[in-house]
Formats: sequence, structure tokens, C-alpha cells
Amino acid sequence: MGEVEEDVLTTVGEAGERALLKEIGAILGPSSDPAVVLGFGDDAAVLSPSERMEHVLTCDVQVEGIHFEPRRHGFRNWGSRAMTAALSDLAAMGASPRWCLVSLGLRQDLSLADFQALNHGLVAAADAAGAAVVGGNISLAGERCLCDVSALGEIEPGRAVARGTAETGQLIIVTGYPGRAAAGLALSRVGEPETDAQKQTVRAYLEPRARIALGRELARRRLATAMTDISDGLLRDLGNICEASGRGAVVRTSCLEDHALAEAAASAGCRAEEFLLGASDDYELLFSAARGAWATVAELAEDLGEGPLRVIGEIREGPGLFLEKEDGTLTRVEPEGWDAVKTAGEQGSEGAGEQRGRES
Amino acid sequence: MGEVEEDVLTTVGEAGERALLKEIGAILGPSSDPAVVLGFGDDAAVLSPSERMEHVLTCDVQVEGIHFEPRRHGFRNWGSRAMTAALSDLAAMGASPRWCLVSLGLRQDLSLADFQALNHGLVAAADAAGAAVVGGNISLAGERCLCDVSALGEIEPGRAVARGTAETGQLIIVTGYPGRAAAGLALSRVGEPETDAQKQTVRAYLEPRARIALGRELARRRLATAMTDISDGLLRDLGNICEASGRGAVVRTSCLEDHALAEAAASAGCRAEEFLLGASDDYELLFSAARGAWATVAELAEDLGEGPLRVIGEIREGPGLFLEKEDGTLTRVEPEGWDAVKTAGEQGSEGAGEQRGRES
Repeated sequence: MGEVEEDVLTTVGEAGERALLKEIGAILGPSSDPAVVLGFGDDAAVLSPSERMEHVLTCDVQVEGIHFEPRRHGFRNWGSRAMTAALSDLAAMGASPRWCLVSLGLRQDLSLADFQALNHGLVAAADAAGAAVVGGNISLAGERCLCDVSALGEIEPGRAVARGTAETGQLIIVTGYPGRAAAGLALSRVGEPETDAQKQTVRAYLEPRARIALGRELARRRLATAMTDISDGLLRDLGNICEASGRGAVVRTSCLEDHALAEAAASAGCRAEEFLLGASDDYELLFSAARGAWATVAELAEDLGEGPLRVIGEIREGPGLFLEKEDGTLTRVEPEGWDAVKTAGEQGSEGAGEQRGRES
Repeated sequence: MGEVEEDVLTTVGEAGERALLKEIGAILGPSSDPAVVLGFGDDAAVLSPSERMEHVLTCDVQVEGIHFEPRRHGFRNWGSRAMTAALSDLAAMGASPRWCLVSLGLRQDLSLADFQALNHGLVAAADAAGAAVVGGNISLAGERCLCDVSALGEIEPGRAVARGTAETGQLIIVTGYPGRAAAGLALSRVGEPETDAQKQTVRAYLEPRARIALGRELARRRLATAMTDISDGLLRDLGNICEASGRGAVVRTSCLEDHALAEAAASAGCRAEEFLLGASDDYELLFSAARGAWATVAELAEDLGEGPLRVIGEIREGPGLFLEKEDGTLTRVEPEGWDAVKTAGEQGSEGAGEQRGRES
């Protein structure tokens, strides 16, 4: 922590999320509770209340106009996205969601119809994941509505997949099509989607779902060696895996080609690359796996209806993230993406922040 | 639920918290999960992941300028109050707090020093209650900071104390001194506290603590038959117990006399009654108990250093809340108090809303 003088002058916006998380870690200190298997710092905490099951707890807060624009994109969709954001953190641990709490902060002039739609979206997304909303909280919140979802999942002891356990030489695998949600958002702002590719990308933003079944099976069968979701952007979340694992990574950009994304980006007047590596808003899984496990992993995803998966690179011994072009040249990149406490204009060049539903 | 046309025209502020909770209940429908012992609608949910222990989950969100004014009363105090609000819900079920998640929404211009103070307050209050902060979330939040604490507690199966189990003729008992926190807030706005009574009431606002040990023992020894905290105000929360139990209550106002409160109220230019029955901001426990249990309950509180308790009335067969004066006359009152989604000016006459730290 900096000195007091300095801290008084530094704003949280200047400090950035990473520094703030470190502050909290320092304030918390190491856990002395033997039942806390994995505490502060990963996608979710892992708790061991009994020998039979471990519990996984997470929460995710969304603020109107910062993370979503419900007046433009619908309160039901907001509820669904807010729930999905929390459940995706459980999926990224391999846990099965069981129970949720929802804290709602409301503008006083919010219509009852919008309030109902918000709750329908929350509950529908929980239902779809096999989770039950068991409580929550309502409050006034000033000028912006807010929605904080806490979710508790279960997992067999020892099976939760953390970020810091990737090994050199292992494959880096991603589900779905990173960047489409952000491209869909950009597209929805320039008009009604027309082509199938355009409609697909807009749906990726408005109707995301968490990869619960795949996450659970990857953990249960010990196929994923490290895992996260890419809600902060592919490079940033890959950077988290690498940093926690004490490794680096190389990503082959050719493996990430996505024609629907390219078309949607062009229609929105943006470059696909802006969305691909840095955009958040996707709730896809990113994980490492042993080379020999690839066939099994791909078949599993297919069986669960969660394919296709793509191998996009591999874990390296040395530090740093590298993009590899088709001609084999490597470019080192910074793991930039969405910083939760910086405004859009201050996000890294890969952040594509201005294109996303975050206005401060 | 009303018809769609009507819902579009109704704001959540007009509908009020109670109606909104009913809306959510209707949206949720009855729980079909046998492990949900007590779901939506009480202070917290009761879950039964194993035969050995039940889990109790709750959350409580606070917004800057609505629930607390950290720039006036300190960010550390805010963190402590926000944590206490959630832990108090666990205490009111009789559960032992174990793990917490904290979702923070931040103004970008929040100083790092204030951010640290907020987190220190949160962690200190959790530590004091034997709970560990095991995760959370940071985000931008626009113009107001927000702090949502989710807490998970444990309890032996079958011991959680709900609201709806008070029986006719049982005593109504309250801890501490209801109204002091709100009086302390009012007082802190008119100047520095001078007398001991004044200092005591300001401390009641700035340094509340949840009645964890007492709540746990009342539940463990089955001494409380129904229990809640009075964070929405004494009458409103007693009304919740009565409504859920299908009973009424009579409260003897003479039993609630509090000289420190009276002095603080006078210094703040307010009537003590405004704070006593309707003010929130207190995290005291309100519970019913069999007449024959009083001596045991009082001794228990004394032993735990959580006394003195006061018997303030009794549960009646018929519906309605009544105040009984010393001459024996009864006045029926409405269970008004703090409605989480109405602004201060719209709160009931007992709400004392304008005196509290809630500005919309």
C-alpha cells in the first residue's frame, strides 16, 4: 500500500481494479480458516463446510448505464445478463450453481413493469442453470438501478478448477466466439440487425448463457487444468491464468477467425480485432488442458451441445503473452481488457471500451 | 400482480417495498428444492446442504447518500455498518456467520484512502463476528458508491428462528435501546456530542454491532420462538412477526423509556417517539419467548454481555398492533417504519425518515 498522503490524492479510477484488489488482499491478510479451500482472488471462493461437498461462492454487481443499458436493451435481458455473469463465475470453477441472492437497488421512478421484467430475467436465467433464487434485498439507489447477484455452487471436494494451475506445453482452449457479444452491442447501436450473422452477434450480447454443464464436466473429469471465464476480455483473462500459474502463453490469431464477428464488426464500423482479444461481455470459458486430452474434451463439448471448442494456443514456460501470426512471427502484447474501475476512455487499446455498454 | 397497463404507469417508489417483495415472490413461485428449508421472504434463507448443518444466506446493499453519508460519517464506519447490516440478518435467524462476499460499486473519484478505510471497516466488522470475507467484486458505479454484503452462516438443523412462529400470550423482548441510532444520526448533524448521553447515541449510529452471540444462543436453546432484527424500525418489524405468525401484539410504551434517547432527541430538536417506534438504523434483536423463559433469557443475555433486555409487550390472538399507555388505554397503530424503496418524505408518520441518513 502507498503512503497515506499518496492514497488521499489517488482516486480508485487512477489506481485501477488490479491495484484495488491487491489493497483488499492486503487488508484481508491470509485466511486462517481451514474450511476456506480457496479464498479471495479467484473467480469465486471455495469452501468446505463438510467432507462431502465444497461450496463455491461468488457475486457480480451490475449498474445501469455502466454495465448495461436496460432502457435500450430491455430490463428482462439485463436480469438475464446479471444472473449469467455470476453463474459464469461458478461455471469457470466447475461448480454446479444451487442458490442465488439478488440485491436490487432501484431508481424510484422505475416502472413496476420494468421491475417485473428485471426479476423475470434474473429468475429465468437462474432456472435455466438449475439454480434457485433464495433471497435478496431491495433498496433505493439514487439515479441508477443496480443489480448484484450472489451465487453459491457445489462441487465435489478437490475438483474446483482455479486459475493458477496451468502447466507449460498445455493447450489453451476457448468455448464459443469471443468478441461477439461486444460486436453485437456495437451493432445494436447502429440499427436493426438484418443478416443472420448480424442477428447472431446481437443475440450473443442480449442472450448470453453460462457454460454450466461443460464447466462442471471439465472439472469433474479433471480435463481442465486451469480455467476462467473471459468476462474481462480474452487477453486479460488469459493473462490472469498465466500470472497465477507463473507461466506465459502464445495465442495463434488465425485460430480465432470468426466470419460472423468480422461481418458484424464491419457493419458497426469497427475492426473485429478490437472485439476479439480485449472485449468483455462474453461469458465463454477459457481453460488449459493436456495435449492428450484434446480429443476427449472436444467430444465432451459436442455431447453436451456446447461445441465447437477451439484450441487457440499454448502455455509457455517463460512469462508474457504473445500473438503468433500465420507466418510464425511473435508479437508480445499486454494483457489488456476491461478494467472494472476505469472508464471507457481510459481502457487499454485492446479494450474496445467505448464500444461497450459502459458509460460512467 | 396488476395488469400490464397499470404496471407501466406505477413506479417502484409508488408501489413500495412490500408490494415489490410480493411481486418477486410471485415471480419465484414456490420452491421445489427440498434442501431449501426456508426460502425467499424472511431475514435470510435457510439451506440444508448436508444433514449436519444448515446454511443461512443473506445480503444487504447500501448506497452512498441513501443509507449512509460516508463523506460526513467516515468510510470506515460505513464499511462497518454495511457488514453489520448483513450479519444482523444472520443473528436474527440464530446463525453463526462464517463467510462473506462484498460487492463494491465505486465512484471513480473515490480516493484510495477512502477505499481502504471502507474495506478496513468491512473486514473489522466481519472479524469481530467471526466471519471471513472470502470474495467479492469491484465495479464502477456512477455518482454514488455502493456496498453489497452477502453473508453465509451456519446453524444446526432445525434451529433457525423464523418470523412466523410467535404464539399468543408470548412475551415480546427487545435488545438494547431502539431509536438511539437514528437519534445519534440526527444529533451528529447538529454539532459535536457533548454529554455522555449524547456520545452514547452517536456511537449507537456510528458503531453498531450485530447481536451474534445472543441470537445464536437464543436459537440453540430454543428460547426465541420468533425473531427478527429491527433494521426497518421496531413497529414495522414487529408487524412482520405478527403478520407472518397470524397474530397481533400490544406494546407497552412505558417499557421503552430511554433517558439517553430522550436527551439526545431533545438536543437534536426532535421528539424521542419519532425515533423509538419507527426509526431504523438499529441492529437490535426483537423476539418472542414463552413467559416461563424470561428469567433464563435475561440471565443468558447478562452472561453474554448483551443485556439488559426489555420485555415490551406480548403477542395477542387477534390481528393488529396496539400501544398501551400507563393508564391501560389501547391505541391501534400501523406498523410503519422504513420502506426501502420510498423516499424519506413519503415514509409513514412514525418513519422519522427525514432524520436519517437517507437522501435520494
